[in-house]
Amino acid sequence: MRIARFSIDGNVAFGAVEGQGTVESGDLVLDIIKGIPYADFELSGTKVPLNKVRLLPPVLPNKVVAIGRNYAEHAAELGHEVPEAPITFFKPTTSVIGSGDAIEYPSFSEELHHEAELAVVIGRMCREVPRERVKDVILGYTCANDVTARDVQKREKQWARAKGFDTSCPLGPWVETDVDPHDLTIQATVNGEQRQLGRTSDMVRSIEDLVVHITEAMTLLPGDVILTGTPAGVGPLHVGDEVAVTIEGIGTLTNKVIKRG
Amino acid sequence: MRIARFSIDGNVAFGAVEGQGTVESGDLVLDIIKGIPYADFELSGTKVPLNKVRLLPPVLPNKVVAIGRNYAEHAAELGHEVPEAPITFFKPTTSVIGSGDAIEYPSFSEELHHEAELAVVIGRMCREVPRERVKDVILGYTCANDVTARDVQKREKQWARAKGFDTSCPLGPWVETDVDPHDLTIQATVNGEQRQLGRTSDMVRSIEDLVVHITEAMTLLPGDVILTGTPAGVGPLHVGDEVAVTIEGIGTLTNKVIKRG
Repeated sequence: MRIARFSIDGNVAFGAVEGQGTVESGDLVLDIIKGIPYADFELSGTKVPLNKVRLLPPVLPNKVVAIGRNYAEHAAELGHEVPEAPITFFKPTTSVIGSGDAIEYPSFSEELHHEAELAVVIGRMCREVPRERVKDVILGYTCANDVTARDVQKREKQWARAKGFDTSCPLGPWVETDVDPHDLTIQATVNGEQRQLGRTSDMVRSIEDLVVHITEAMTLLPGDVILTGTPAGVGPLHVGDEVAVTIEGIGTLTNKVIKRG
Repeated sequence: MRIARFSIDGNVAFGAVEGQGTVESGDLVLDIIKGIPYADFELSGTKVPLNKVRLLPPVLPNKVVAIGRNYAEHAAELGHEVPEAPITFFKPTTSVIGSGDAIEYPSFSEELHHEAELAVVIGRMCREVPRERVKDVILGYTCANDVTARDVQKREKQWARAKGFDTSCPLGPWVETDVDPHDLTIQATVNGEQRQLGRTSDMVRSIEDLVVHITEAMTLLPGDVILTGTPAGVGPLHVGDEVAVTIEGIGTLTNKVIKRG
C-alpha cells in the first residue's frame, strides 16, 4: 500500500494511493483514510488535589532543542573550551518523562551522568525571533535533567543515542510562567547530597541569545522546550539513586534511577 | 501559571497548578484544562483523484532519526572514513515537507547540499527490536532528501541547525509498503541532470542493523522515519533549482529551492 497525506478544499486527510502513474497523470486515486488529528485545551474550573494524581511531563513538546557547554565551568570540567557557536542538538519526545518517573539505566552505557538544566517552554509558534521579542514567545520555565550516557557520547560523533535514549529527558514538575529566569540558583542532588550548583546568570549565552540562534534556523511550536545547558558538577548516576534538580522559584524535579526492565 | 499534565483514573489531562507547597503536601490543586489529544485512522472507501489534491508529507513522524556516512563512497567524497559506530542524529518534525513543497534556502548558509536517501517508515511502536523482527516493525519506504547546510555542518559540532532547519527534510511522494528495499537504485537529479546515483545494497549498515542500533536506545513510534544515509554525488543547490530524488519501485520526490521569504 502507498499511503499519502494530503489536503483538499482546506481539509487534511490520509489516503491510500491506487493505480499506476505519476502524480500529474490523473491515473492515481486516493482511498481516503477516516480520521483527523485533533487537540484543544481550555480551563474547565473542575478541580482535583494534585497529590491524588500522577504527574506527567508538564508539556508535550514537538521537539526538545538542547544546548551543550553553556556554562564555562562545566565545559572546563569535561576538558573543553566554550564553543564559538552554541552546540545545538535534539532530544526526542520519546525521551521525555515527568517528575516521579523512573530514569531507566540503558543497557549500552556504563557511565550515566546527571545534568541539571533550566528548561524554557515555548508558548507560541515562532521563527526568526528578534531579541526584543523573545519574552513574547516564552510560556514559562521548568526543571530538566539532560541525562547523558557519557561513555557513548565520547565514542559516537553525534549524540542522538547518548542523549536521546528513553527516559533521558526528565521535565517538571510543572511550568512556571511567572518567574524571571536570569539569575536563579540551579542545583542537582543525588540521594540528598549536593552535586551541581550554579546560577543561571552564569550562562555563556543567555536565553535570548539561544532563542535567536535556534529560531534563525527552525520554527518553534507551542510546547517546544529549550534546555539551556548545565553548570559544573556533573557526575555519575547508579541504579537505585534518586536525583533531584531544583531551580529557585520553579520547583524540584525528582527521579529515581532503575535498571531497564 | 504552573501548568501540569497528569493522569487520574486512567484519564490524561492538563491542569493549572493552584496553591503553594510541595507535590506531596496536599496543598496544591489542579484546575483541569479541557481537551485530550486524539488521532485515529481507517479506510472510508471514498475516493478522489490524486492530481486534484495537494500532497503533504506521507507520514507525520514523531521523530526522524538519520544516519551519517552510510555509503563508503559518500564518506570518502567528504574526506571521511566510515565511522566505527553509525552516526545517528535527529531532524525535527518542523523540517518535514512533502513532494512539491519548496525547500527554503536558509539565511545562515551559503552552501546548501542535496542528499538523496531511502527513508524507512515505522509501522508500530517498538524498542530493542531483534534483527529477525525488524521487518515486522516497518510499514514501508519513501524517498527523502536530507538537505544539509554543509558550511554550517562544518563549523557547528552538532548538526541540529545544519540539518534541522525548516524544509530540510522533504519526504514523499508516498509510503510504499510492498517493495524489497535491499537492492534499489537511488538517484538525485538537479534540473534534470543526474548528480547522485547509488544502490541501497551499498549501505555500510543494513536497514536491519540500523533499526537494531537505534532501538537499542530509544522507542520508535508509528510514523517515525529513519533516513538511511546518502550515496556519493552530493552537491550544491541554488535558488531556482528543482531537485528530484527517485528510488526504484517507490517513486520520485520533487522539490524546488526558493529564497526564504
